Amino acid sequence: MKNTTLTSPKGFLAAGLSCGIKKSGNKDIGIISCPTGAKAAAVFTTNKVVSAAVTICKNHSKSASVEAVVVNSGNANTCTGTAGLKNAEIMCKIAAQLLDTKPNQVFVASTGIIGHQLPMQNVSTGIILAAAQLANSQKAGENFAHAIMTTDTKCKQAFKTVRIANAEIKIAGTTKGAGMIGPNMATTLCFITTDANITKTLLQKALSEAVGQSLNKLTVDGHQSTNDTAIILASGLAGNKIINKADSHSKKFAAALFNLCTDLAKQMALDAEGATRMFTVEISTAANKAEATKAARAVADYDLVKCAIHGGDPNWGRIICAVGSCGVKINPNKLSCSIGGITVFKNGQPVKFDPKKVSRIISSKEHTIAVSLGAGKHSDFCYGCDLSKDYVTINADYHT
Amino acid sequence: MKNTTLTSPKGFLAAGLSCGIKKSGNKDIGIISCPTGAKAAAVFTTNKVVSAAVTICKNHSKSASVEAVVVNSGNANTCTGTAGLKNAEIMCKIAAQLLDTKPNQVFVASTGIIGHQLPMQNVSTGIILAAAQLANSQKAGENFAHAIMTTDTKCKQAFKTVRIANAEIKIAGTTKGAGMIGPNMATTLCFITTDANITKTLLQKALSEAVGQSLNKLTVDGHQSTNDTAIILASGLAGNKIINKADSHSKKFAAALFNLCTDLAKQMALDAEGATRMFTVEISTAANKAEATKAARAVADYDLVKCAIHGGDPNWGRIICAVGSCGVKINPNKLSCSIGGITVFKNGQPVKFDPKKVSRIISSKEHTIAVSLGAGKHSDFCYGCDLSKDYVTINADYHT
Repeated sequence: MKNTTLTSPKGFLAAGLSCGIKKSGNKDIGIISCPTGAKAAAVFTTNKVVSAAVTICKNHSKSASVEAVVVNSGNANTCTGTAGLKNAEIMCKIAAQLLDTKPNQVFVASTGIIGHQLPMQNVSTGIILAAAQLANSQKAGENFAHAIMTTDTKCKQAFKTVRIANAEIKIAGTTKGAGMIGPNMATTLCFITTDANITKTLLQKALSEAVGQSLNKLTVDGHQSTNDTAIILASGLAGNKIINKADSHSKKFAAALFNLCTDLAKQMALDAEGATRMFTVEISTAANKAEATKAARAVADYDLVKCAIHGGDPNWGRIICAVGSCGVKINPNKLSCSIGGITVFKNGQPVKFDPKKVSRIISSKEHTIAVSLGAGKHSDFCYGCDLSKDYVTINADYHT
Repeated sequence: MKNTTLTSPKGFLAAGLSCGIKKSGNKDIGIISCPTGAKAAAVFTTNKVVSAAVTICKNHSKSASVEAVVVNSGNANTCTGTAGLKNAEIMCKIAAQLLDTKPNQVFVASTGIIGHQLPMQNVSTGIILAAAQLANSQKAGENFAHAIMTTDTKCKQAFKTVRIANAEIKIAGTTKGAGMIGPNMATTLCFITTDANITKTLLQKALSEAVGQSLNKLTVDGHQSTNDTAIILASGLAGNKIINKADSHSKKFAAALFNLCTDLAKQMALDAEGATRMFTVEISTAANKAEATKAARAVADYDLVKCAIHGGDPNWGRIICAVGSCGVKINPNKLSCSIGGITVFKNGQPVKFDPKKVSRIISSKEHTIAVSLGAGKHSDFCYGCDLSKDYVTINADYHT
């Protein structure tokens, strides 16, 4: 079987196991290793309260070469003060020692409950055991992907190949995230490996753009967490001539990375806490790009729209209500809306449509809501998912 | 029994009955009448898409004297184009004819499903029957209060008296609203009667201020509807010397009106769709007033906070996460939080507390979450409620 995990691109090893942070006994610590050193790029949450891990990563992302990423789930290491910061540093130090590198060449990421100190005995032992298990197998990649999960019901992975300058370049990614997902950036943790030979600058540009149009376009409950981190490591071992300028090669790489991130974003939407289906909101004829973005997000975040979709109910009035109340410019006499290509509201007037047909559309796995604001020439989109009783159950019962 | 309904202040009659707009057969049309004419003040939704009724009311609120309010539930008369506007005008005309007044001396309000034309046959018959039943009894007031309900499980009424210049002034109010409730203004429909003798200008000032600090401080799902309207009618029959300047008399009236509106807002929070309890978010040491308001609302609107409260879970990390991501200035090293007076997070560090005790507090009918941002000297508050599975059930099953 072809390896399509993080260990598929040349130069990467991974491991994932349980060290007892999660009461369930599920895997909760993972390592990605690139012994030859990788160029790294990263994007982080814009929340003003951040995990100690994010603080450390922002600093380490300046390193020219990164050799490892250590991740734990079950504890966010956020709102943990100076002790938390020290613990994140210790995680890097232990990994660096075991993998014969420097602490600032190690990334660290945490996800889970906020405000609890990490059980460092477990974490330390976990890192030691994981480092000993590092392998480039499919199984090892999958173990890592499982180790980053929290309320996810499915392990989310994607894999792409792209031919650039006669070399086959591989890109693999895994992401976790099911709730507390909103813009900037709309994921909890995302790790991507590639064997592309590319400059750090172009790698960062490709990652920022890809995430901006994929993970950042997803909202589950509109709320960016304190730990959101997306990291890409490029080993440079694919054998391609270095991608070092904006040309067809860099565009091809960026396109493949964007496809991978979109794939991961859609998997997240469909595995959102309690979600049974996802939808894309497309806003057109907005006064400017920012307002198009805002309106798309307002519809996707609107609990009443999300509930209607969950109930298979073509209650388009809630879509219009969301657009009208989000503060963007609209022309009420030109305002129009379609669901799955069927017009339900046009130029400020209701339109007769077959409610059963539209109900079938919004009850399917994926559909598109399109709203034309009649206020300008700009457009944007957003991914959303339905709101179910299970979202409440999951988040009311997720006890501290 | 003392009459504490809208018909209690001198000069008012009311009626409410079913005319068949609602499939359930519940009351769906109501009239308030003030045959001697009342000074009127009103505030409306800031949604850019508004009900035809809101458009008409904004115009009629300029009238020096108002004699009636006609309200229907079960249909919002929103997104109904020119036909909807005409129907709202017809409602005023029929009532004006029956009550021997002018159409521009009649207010109209609608609430319910968006995008459907009003069944005018039923509505017309309903207005005729209601006009014939107008009375100043407790029962008549209650009938009106029931006629404005949609997904409300309880009829919400409040009554206050205040002694001003040797006259006893009565103020009575009723409100409907359970979902689609957010800022500006946080109610669907609110009707208040008083027999105070007061100028139109001071009446408007008192209403705007009272609503701003009560109904507008409530968020259920963060979304102002297209129909939000609060109207106060003052008959002037209490016998007090006219309140015509900013003095102790106008302050006394304003305070009583504010108390009434706060009473109604809290009733709404506790009857919010699926809600089992309410809470107040108090933000202090914000950089400015607007940021205090924004942060309070962000916490009250945050689905994960609402779910945690529903589960009786003192998961304060979600409160901090909401504050950190809402875009206001914070000082992470001074950030503190208490729940029901018990400190759970102080100066950026977690604090040991008894989780069972805090769980009991947030499981009670009402509690307060206080967050100090450490960024300035300003404060504000917001009312919120928990998010339960019933919210989803109600809104997924509320079929078009």
